[in-house]
Amino acid sequence: MLKHSDPLSLAFQALADPTRRQLVDRLIAGPASVTQLHEPLEMTMSAVVQHLTVLEAAGLVRSEKLGRVRTFQVDSDGLRRTEAWLHERRTPTERRLDRLEAFLDPTTDTPDATDTDTTHPNHHQARTDP
Amino acid sequence: MLKHSDPLSLAFQALADPTRRQLVDRLIAGPASVTQLHEPLEMTMSAVVQHLTVLEAAGLVRSEKLGRVRTFQVDSDGLRRTEAWLHERRTPTERRLDRLEAFLDPTTDTPDATDTDTTHPNHHQARTDP
Repeated sequence: MLKHSDPLSLAFQALADPTRRQLVDRLIAGPASVTQLHEPLEMTMSAVVQHLTVLEAAGLVRSEKLGRVRTFQVDSDGLRRTEAWLHERRTPTERRLDRLEAFLDPTTDTPDATDTDTTHPNHHQARTDP
Repeated sequence: MLKHSDPLSLAFQALADPTRRQLVDRLIAGPASVTQLHEPLEMTMSAVVQHLTVLEAAGLVRSEKLGRVRTFQVDSDGLRRTEAWLHERRTPTERRLDRLEAFLDPTTDTPDATDTDTTHPNHHQARTDP
């Protein structure tokens, strides 16, 4: 089985496992040690460490060692980059519907299909004044 | 190597390959036959068919046969479901920043962190009238 090592392939590969998605879910709530992450899971500590290693190599979590305890936390940038790839894949019809929706209801939070950087507040399509 | 067969794992697994992401990119532009999809790729027709089978099993593309030609197109629902999983994984800090951003600039298209159904235009956080 061919494995790919580009960042996006590593991220999607890492998320293709329910246990690893469960670990991401747990870490979204806040940082945790390997022991805390292992506790609710029915697997060996070494299996948990292996999953965390895959997630860290994929840039989805980060860890730091304080004394003897290694603490993990999510890497938001990695998760947002992966989400952005999917967000950019909207069909022309979806993009038109997004724009129509935003036009009909300006309070809608529909993401702008033409703007891939959702973290930037000032990118907004110009509107003609009535 | 353990493979998982739940829809989300299949989708992430399918996207963990650059060629398959390239096929999705091509199909975002519009439906295409296997011959058209094969043309720009440096691989055998059978490899292309195999990649398309993985994408179709993951619910990311659909195909239909008209006469002797099988035409593929993206399955937007599958792509949006996968994007939604990532969109829902925002840390409490990211959610607070999203809300702050939306508050400071009501024209911002920042997705509502509390609303996971981005396709629905009427879900919006209630505001107290001044």
